[in-house]
Amino acid sequence: MNTLGHIFRLTTFGESHGTAIGGVIDGCPSQMKLDFNFIDSELHRRKTAQSATASQRKEPDKIEWLSGLLDGVTLGTPLAFMVRNADCKSSDYEALKDVYRPSHADFTYEKKYGLRDWRGGGRASARTTLPIVVAGAIAKQILKGKDVEIIAEVATMGDVEQARKEGDTLGGIVECRVLGAPVGLGEPMFGKFSAELAHAMFSLPAVKGFEIGDGFALANRKGSEANDTFINKDGQIATATNHSGGIQGGITNGNDIVFRVAFKPIPSIAKPQQTVNRAGEPCEIAIEGRHDVCALPRALVLVEALAAMVTLDEWMLNASQFIQ
Amino acid sequence: MNTLGHIFRLTTFGESHGTAIGGVIDGCPSQMKLDFNFIDSELHRRKTAQSATASQRKEPDKIEWLSGLLDGVTLGTPLAFMVRNADCKSSDYEALKDVYRPSHADFTYEKKYGLRDWRGGGRASARTTLPIVVAGAIAKQILKGKDVEIIAEVATMGDVEQARKEGDTLGGIVECRVLGAPVGLGEPMFGKFSAELAHAMFSLPAVKGFEIGDGFALANRKGSEANDTFINKDGQIATATNHSGGIQGGITNGNDIVFRVAFKPIPSIAKPQQTVNRAGEPCEIAIEGRHDVCALPRALVLVEALAAMVTLDEWMLNASQFIQ
Amino acid sequence: MNTLGHIFRLTTFGESHGTAIGGVIDGCPSQMKLDFNFIDSELHRRKTAQSATASQRKEPDKIEWLSGLLDGVTLGTPLAFMVRNADCKSSDYEALKDVYRPSHADFTYEKKYGLRDWRGGGRASARTTLPIVVAGAIAKQILKGKDVEIIAEVATMGDVEQARKEGDTLGGIVECRVLGAPVGLGEPMFGKFSAELAHAMFSLPAVKGFEIGDGFALANRKGSEANDTFINKDGQIATATNHSGGIQGGITNGNDIVFRVAFKPIPSIAKPQQTVNRAGEPCEIAIEGRHDVCALPRALVLVEALAAMVTLDEWMLNASQFIQ
Amino acid sequence: MNTLGHIFRLTTFGESHGTAIGGVIDGCPSQMKLDFNFIDSELHRRKTAQSATASQRKEPDKIEWLSGLLDGVTLGTPLAFMVRNADCKSSDYEALKDVYRPSHADFTYEKKYGLRDWRGGGRASARTTLPIVVAGAIAKQILKGKDVEIIAEVATMGDVEQARKEGDTLGGIVECRVLGAPVGLGEPMFGKFSAELAHAMFSLPAVKGFEIGDGFALANRKGSEANDTFINKDGQIATATNHSGGIQGGITNGNDIVFRVAFKPIPSIAKPQQTVNRAGEPCEIAIEGRHDVCALPRALVLVEALAAMVTLDEWMLNASQFIQ
Repeated sequence: MNTLGHIFRLTTFGESHGTAIGGVIDGCPSQMKLDFNFIDSELHRRKTAQSATASQRKEPDKIEWLSGLLDGVTLGTPLAFMVRNADCKSSDYEALKDVYRPSHADFTYEKKYGLRDWRGGGRASARTTLPIVVAGAIAKQILKGKDVEIIAEVATMGDVEQARKEGDTLGGIVECRVLGAPVGLGEPMFGKFSAELAHAMFSLPAVKGFEIGDGFALANRKGSEANDTFINKDGQIATATNHSGGIQGGITNGNDIVFRVAFKPIPSIAKPQQTVNRAGEPCEIAIEGRHDVCALPRALVLVEALAAMVTLDEWMLNASQFIQ
Repeated sequence: MNTLGHIFRLTTFGESHGTAIGGVIDGCPSQMKLDFNFIDSELHRRKTAQSATASQRKEPDKIEWLSGLLDGVTLGTPLAFMVRNADCKSSDYEALKDVYRPSHADFTYEKKYGLRDWRGGGRASARTTLPIVVAGAIAKQILKGKDVEIIAEVATMGDVEQARKEGDTLGGIVECRVLGAPVGLGEPMFGKFSAELAHAMFSLPAVKGFEIGDGFALANRKGSEANDTFINKDGQIATATNHSGGIQGGITNGNDIVFRVAFKPIPSIAKPQQTVNRAGEPCEIAIEGRHDVCALPRALVLVEALAAMVTLDEWMLNASQFIQ
Repeated sequence: MNTLGHIFRLTTFGESHGTAIGGVIDGCPSQMKLDFNFIDSELHRRKTAQSATASQRKEPDKIEWLSGLLDGVTLGTPLAFMVRNADCKSSDYEALKDVYRPSHADFTYEKKYGLRDWRGGGRASARTTLPIVVAGAIAKQILKGKDVEIIAEVATMGDVEQARKEGDTLGGIVECRVLGAPVGLGEPMFGKFSAELAHAMFSLPAVKGFEIGDGFALANRKGSEANDTFINKDGQIATATNHSGGIQGGITNGNDIVFRVAFKPIPSIAKPQQTVNRAGEPCEIAIEGRHDVCALPRALVLVEALAAMVTLDEWMLNASQFIQ
Repeated sequence: MNTLGHIFRLTTFGESHGTAIGGVIDGCPSQMKLDFNFIDSELHRRKTAQSATASQRKEPDKIEWLSGLLDGVTLGTPLAFMVRNADCKSSDYEALKDVYRPSHADFTYEKKYGLRDWRGGGRASARTTLPIVVAGAIAKQILKGKDVEIIAEVATMGDVEQARKEGDTLGGIVECRVLGAPVGLGEPMFGKFSAELAHAMFSLPAVKGFEIGDGFALANRKGSEANDTFINKDGQIATATNHSGGIQGGITNGNDIVFRVAFKPIPSIAKPQQTVNRAGEPCEIAIEGRHDVCALPRALVLVEALAAMVTLDEWMLNASQFIQ
């Protein structure tokens, strides 16, 4: 179940310290001249070591395109791509081979699969989100041609330099807006636009919460305070407010789609922690190595990418109803 | 896109004031003696008019089983069922035919489909969740046989009688726990247990937020405060805390699965509101008729039902890896 | 796995002598005025007792529409429908309860599910194809609006009255043509138009062969005899022949789509046969009751229905690539 | 739609003369030591230039594994692999850039996508079946551990050396048997084992017919000649004959699964043919270059591979019903 989407579909593969990370995009329209510079700039936003919050791993993140293109133009066939894992210091992780890092996926992967790739977190590493950025950049390019824009920002984040000094990490909240999406995207019942967005966002590591519009705050309001009343704005039907975040009954209403995603702190902390090893024996662990203090700066582009993929996919699903 | 699930799949149909509401369950194991009393008792929990918070519609909610059973035992073929919409006063809604009720799906459905069933909210009515209760009850019965239990409670809700007096409505938060689920359910990347849960919960009307474990609160913590350290508990590997809500890396870790769902207030309020009609002309609306003050009491069984369906479906998906 | 289609999806339910047979169509475009007379006339084509070849079961086959319609117009929500199983003489089958009828699904269903609905063949009865006719009629109505027509004919069938006299049954071959389908339907690799057609046709009971264009005969030809050379026909690119049956590389080329479906003889024969019972004891069986001599006359409408569903579904899939 | 399978899923990518051909296998069980020698030997069976019937392209077909493995053992995460297209003489095809080769996919791809990869047939090239061999070899390895074996043979093929001399090509029929598959695989209605097999086989280029058991021959028989009567064979329930090819009601019955696949002749012939160019102008074409006389020798391993994938996938689907 490593595939996202109904029509515009991304299948990803790769472990942190395996041979390569990559993806296959199926359902991308043909005759589209890919903007490789834009894809690179989006990858740069995700890249390690970009700022004070991020880790030190040097990844060239050079994309190799494997299929689906002729002279840079999409053929309508699957777009496959990969990035080789160049700078892998698996030895950093040798000590962790038999120890379960707290709030990491070591324990659950090992129980589910009977073994785990202990090198750099394997499939559970944040590095495996790289293909999402690529697919998202392509979706964004298509959406931009339809005047749809997507912008994510940090809404809440603690004091990075203080946390770094303490050998600790931080969580935070990302807020994202989809501007210009048409009315009518999303399907009733189990294909609601909000449900598809929530599903996509929870695919990111460390995500623990998702809300749309005023979200959890609406739980404490009255109907009269939460409803978006309709108005006539310059001859167009509009709403006076946007508490609903652009979705009514699971379907886009033409307002900005606004949602927030809560990330837990990165679990790899330098501070010593208690844990157990595979034999169940208690031990202490202090996770050294190249790790971010906070996932948010690089999560922005991921949140945008997934929002773009969902918006495009729902649009295509809607378009399927109109044969010509 | 009216289907939920990969193996244990529910397809629902029906509008509030159409002929019937129902569903088809595909992928239910054979040779299971259905507990019809339990299904009825679950439906009773969802039923209208059960308490001070709920509306006055009298629905017998008598299930008719259409297929998939021989002497009450599942055949392994699709289980189809329906409930006729007996007590439909569509005339109540006649006045709303050309008016967009604030924060309802009237506007979006009409824009998406070019028409809408204005009688009782059509497909967007909360009544269309009834089949979820039926499928959830069957999933619960199977899970109970494996010692898995699911319990939802109201975590936050305002003062019902005050709101009713004011002609207003209330939102609230439901907290749900899945107890006894095995380690190892959920798939990496786009099939995370948390993502599947979030997707399912956002299929309910009025849901605007979802969080797992400590959720949004984790965004304000440091890693050292958020991590669940491993301990040896009576010879078993366990965690000292459960901030993660039973999921690590998208996979269940054997702890209770704990999540919360935020519901906005029911948008149908008796208080007068400004809105517009189909022609875009401003008008006032006061929604009379049979409506709940708060969705929470009847949402409990829906949240449980969807949690049961997701848990069973992920379990079956996991079982597919072990051919014999 | 009782669902067919990607966008225009039919989920069916029902056993021969259960409460009802029916289906749910998801993904049907909204704002379509259903031609109920046409649906009835298609059902009439499938109906039992229509001719010399068919059995004596009297089925009113009166469709009840459960959802998805407002004043006979599609809402874009699931179209659910059913037909009650009125004339069920299960007692006819009581004697067969513990006996495996040769070349029936009794044995395989029992082994797979641990039990079987022995009344009238249960889910394996040809009666369960009824919902296909309904969905096919709707697909045909949509296609007709696009000038696409579908016609199936009996290509090969033995002497019915001779077989009936002998207490025997007949197989046969149906040939079907889809006229007017646009160029470009079908997806490369695993979504070839021919593969989707083959899959759909093998969903019918008793189907044992499928070929497209000149099919098996092509296996004995040389390339120079099998190729469809291109010509310029009145200024349009066309082919001189249609050995390929309208499909090249899995994609429609604008020619008539021509295929043939081979049906084995109906396995229920009055002639005595050797078999065994559940205990493995040899016994003799002579299947009395209401059974067709040959499935072909009523298979025509089924083959057309499935061809219509596949054509529409592939068209919708293709349309999804063009957002507007 | 470049994905095959429900649980054991193969997504393929690549064009004949693009950068690489490859695939991603999702749903492969973990803890399996891959038999790389066997995979290589299977690829060798498919390889070009292996015999008198085949073309001259020298492909090293060296597989590079990109993910999903630790020390050659499956991790349960996606297995990605690729083969670089080393020996690409695109110049051979330059002359064909504007000409539609008869009975090739040039015309349909161009109409569907608005452009086509003219180099070596692009996505429609037989070379793109390579990933099927890899996935099939893995499926075979798993099945072999369960004592299931799959063997395909040439059933019908013309005189190769005569055809080669004439600058012509040949079609043929492949017969395949699955030995040892358990009773009970396949799902009713739209998930019949035969339907899944047919769908898979029609994914191969040049396939124009598929039949199971006695197939088309059954159309000319009477029921009494076509039925497989049950017998007691050494205390086991068995059938006296296997006209049905191991499938009853879409479900495996424990007999050998026997089917045949008809391939049309390879459309690339050296003999001159009439055709048209993109402008619709008539021209003559004689396809030089490295082409097989007959696809059958290398199709054997492909038919086996797809049969293995379908058998394993259906087995896993069946296993999902038994949670533990």
